[in-house]
Amino acid sequence: MNKLFAETPDAPYYAVIFTSKRTEGHTDEYDEETQKMITLLADQKGFLGFETASKEIGITISYWKDIAAIMAWRNNLGHLAAQKKGKESFYEAFKVRIAKVERDYSF
Amino acid sequence: MNKLFAETPDAPYYAVIFTSKRTEGHTDEYDEETQKMITLLADQKGFLGFETASKEIGITISYWKDIAAIMAWRNNLGHLAAQKKGKESFYEAFKVRIAKVERDYSF
Repeated sequence: MNKLFAETPDAPYYAVIFTSKRTEGHTDEYDEETQKMITLLADQKGFLGFETASKEIGITISYWKDIAAIMAWRNNLGHLAAQKKGKESFYEAFKVRIAKVERDYSF
Repeated sequence: MNKLFAETPDAPYYAVIFTSKRTEGHTDEYDEETQKMITLLADQKGFLGFETASKEIGITISYWKDIAAIMAWRNNLGHLAAQKKGKESFYEAFKVRIAKVERDYSF
């Protein structure tokens, strides 16, 4: 399996689908903040992995053990600061969807 | 709201998360097949929209009214032919996750 794919356990588990449209500019600041978040995420309880791709829009999916783990991440202090910067500077628009993965298969 | 985002209804609804790693080449054939699938999808009962982005990996999320609609799409004849080409030519690896969107919010 490709290392760019998240190695998630057997279903059920949770996915947070973050779809975003970036503003122009703020590139260095954005890249720095992204690296900070990846470091923070790795230590987060119940975090299972993430997948990301971007072209006209960005799609980042993080995978989680349960809803409690997602809520803890949502309220993580470093993440709250990043969310604020996201709304103020980085994103023109975004959408967050919290979903329970019921089945999966791969090739 | 950006038109590149899927305009999904209030939760609950379903997401099919398709994460893929492309093979080299087959570009024209792949683009043609993608356009065919988008046309087919638009007529599919219970289809709510899709979002896509690709860089090192591709992530395409299609949104659906319910599991029955996803199963009908999975067994659509045109889509079955595309799935065959996908495995034979287009993808080195892929993962499909079927998830129930329980809540969402946007900015």
